[in-house]
Amino acid sequence: MAAAALIEIWRGDLPESLHSGHAVVYGPQGVERVWGDAGAVVFPRSSCKMVQALPLLESGAAKAAGLGLRELALSCASHSGAALHVGAVNAWLTGLGLGEADLRCGAHLPFDKAEATRLSGSGESPCQLHNNCSGKHAGFLTLNRHLKGGPDYVEIDHPVQLAARAAFEEVTGETAAGWGIDGCSAPNFACTLEGLARAMHFFAAARPEDGLRAGAAAQLVQAMTAFPELVAGENRACTKLMRATGGKVAVKTGAEGVFVAILPEQKRGVALKITDGATRASEAAITALLVHLGALAPDHPVVAELVPPVSRNWRGLATGGMRLAPGFC
Amino acid sequence: MAAAALIEIWRGDLPESLHSGHAVVYGPQGVERVWGDAGAVVFPRSSCKMVQALPLLESGAAKAAGLGLRELALSCASHSGAALHVGAVNAWLTGLGLGEADLRCGAHLPFDKAEATRLSGSGESPCQLHNNCSGKHAGFLTLNRHLKGGPDYVEIDHPVQLAARAAFEEVTGETAAGWGIDGCSAPNFACTLEGLARAMHFFAAARPEDGLRAGAAAQLVQAMTAFPELVAGENRACTKLMRATGGKVAVKTGAEGVFVAILPEQKRGVALKITDGATRASEAAITALLVHLGALAPDHPVVAELVPPVSRNWRGLATGGMRLAPGFC
Repeated sequence: MAAAALIEIWRGDLPESLHSGHAVVYGPQGVERVWGDAGAVVFPRSSCKMVQALPLLESGAAKAAGLGLRELALSCASHSGAALHVGAVNAWLTGLGLGEADLRCGAHLPFDKAEATRLSGSGESPCQLHNNCSGKHAGFLTLNRHLKGGPDYVEIDHPVQLAARAAFEEVTGETAAGWGIDGCSAPNFACTLEGLARAMHFFAAARPEDGLRAGAAAQLVQAMTAFPELVAGENRACTKLMRATGGKVAVKTGAEGVFVAILPEQKRGVALKITDGATRASEAAITALLVHLGALAPDHPVVAELVPPVSRNWRGLATGGMRLAPGFC
Repeated sequence: MAAAALIEIWRGDLPESLHSGHAVVYGPQGVERVWGDAGAVVFPRSSCKMVQALPLLESGAAKAAGLGLRELALSCASHSGAALHVGAVNAWLTGLGLGEADLRCGAHLPFDKAEATRLSGSGESPCQLHNNCSGKHAGFLTLNRHLKGGPDYVEIDHPVQLAARAAFEEVTGETAAGWGIDGCSAPNFACTLEGLARAMHFFAAARPEDGLRAGAAAQLVQAMTAFPELVAGENRACTKLMRATGGKVAVKTGAEGVFVAILPEQKRGVALKITDGATRASEAAITALLVHLGALAPDHPVVAELVPPVSRNWRGLATGGMRLAPGFC
C-alpha cells in the first residue's frame, strides 16, 4: 500500500512540498488506526532504544550495577551531548570501572550549543561520551559486564546484541526483516511499522506485576517520562513533547523520520515513519497524533512550534506555513 | 500524475528512505523526457535567479552601471556569504552610491565556515550582504536605479518585480500559477515544472545574435559558468558541478528540493523538484541527470560525492548508501 500524505509545506496560497509516510496507532485490541501501510518495513533507528534496553533490566545487570532512573533514561536517550549528559554517562562508566575508550559508538560534535561552543573555544575534540547514543552504549556495557562478553559488544553475534535482537523480535512480534549498522555502530533491526507500534503498545500496557519483561518496560517508561531532559535535551522535540504531556506520554525520535509514542493511560502505542526521512515532518506528525489522541492540548505552545501554521523569513515576513494533509488526524 | 521514485537511501540490505519527485528534460523539439508529472506546479525559488536577472540586462541597467561578468554571476547566485561574496556585493553597491541598508533581503549567518567563524569570534552580527541572495538584490537595486523606482523594490507591484514577473512568464511560456514571498523577501512565482524546464531550454539555446533577451540570457549563462565560485561557493553542489562539467553546463539549486541545469551544447534545459524538499535528493538527482545526458563523466569524483554509493558512520563503518530508484536515469 502506498504512503499517505501527512504533512504539507505551503508558500503563499500554494502547497510547496509534501511529506508522505506511514503511521499506526496500536491499542489493547490491536491496530486501531493506520495512515499509509502498516506493513511498511522500517528501521526504527533510535526510536527503539527502550526495546534495546530491556535486556539490561531483565538480566539483572541494571540492579547489580545499582542503576537509577537517570541512567535508565540515558539508556533510552538520543541526548544532546550537553555537560549534563556527558557528565552522567562518564560517572556511570566510572562506576563500572570502565571509561570512554570502552565505548564503540564513535565521536561526533554534540547538538548542545553550549557544549559545542565550549569545545571549539578550548580546541578540544568531541569524544565518544558526546555521541547522542553514549547512554545506550553505557547500558550495553553494563549488560556486557554482567554477561562477561568480549569488548566488541556491537558485533551482530555478540551476546549483548543477541539479547537485544531477541527482545526486539519478541515485543514487535516479528522476526527481524533484516538489519543494518546504525550511526552509533550498533545493529539496528528492521520490522513493520505495525510491529513497532505493537512494541510501543507493550510498553504502554506494561505493569510491574505482570512479570520481568513488563516490569522492565514499565520502569523504562517511568525513567523516560521522569527525566525528559536526559532523553534528548533542551530545545529538542522529545524533551518538549514529554514536558508538554506532563509526564503522561513517553516519546522517542529515530533518524530518517521515525517517531514513536507510548501512552500508558490509554494503553496505546504509536509509530510513524516519514518516507523521505525528514525530521521536520516526523516531529510535526507525532505532535499532530498526540493532539488527535487527546494526549496533548491543541493550544499548547509546543503544537504551534512543531506544526508551525505560519513560517517567517529573515525579515519576519509571513511566507507560508505547515499544514496537516487532508485525511491525516 | 504521481511523483516518480527518484532517490533511495539504503541501510544494510534494505531501503530505508525514498525521495520522489518530478524531472523534465526540455530540448529543441520540446519535452524530451519526464519522470513524474511535467505539469506539477512548483516554486522555482532560487533556481530561477537567472530569469529574475534578465530585466537587469535587457533594460540596459547592467551596461549603464558598468557591470561585468562577476556581478552578473552574483546576480544569479545563492552564495555562501564568504568574504569573496560579501566584498564583491559591497563594492557593487558602493559603485551605485548605495549600501547594505538599501537591501531588502534580511540578514542570516553565512554558510561559509570561515566567515561564520570570523563573525562569531569578533562578536559581529551577520548583515544583509551575507544573505545568500544579496547579489540578486544588488541586481534588483541596479535595475531600480535605472527605472527610478521607490526603495521597496521587493513589493509585488514594484516596477522591478513587474519586470521580473513579465520575464518569468515569457520564458516559462506560462501565466504564473501563483506567487509567494521567498526567504529573501522577493516575490517568487509558481509555474509548472515543464515551464521551468522550457525556461532553462531558452537559456541553453540563447545566442547573442538572436536579440536582446537571448543576448541577455547567453551573457548570464556565460557569467555563471565562468565564475562558479561566485554562484555558490566552496564545497557547494552548484560550484562543484559547474567545475566538474568544465564550464559547459550552468546549474542552479533552489530551496525545497529544486534544481535546474542549462546545457548550451545540447540546447537542453533540465528542471527537477523533489516533492519533500530535500536537498540531498535534489543534488543527487541533478548529478544523475547530468551523467545521464552525457554532460558529466560517471567516474568524476563529484558523482560519488553527491550520489554516495556508500555511507559511513562516526567510526567509518559502511552502513548503506544512496541509489537511483529503478527507472530513474
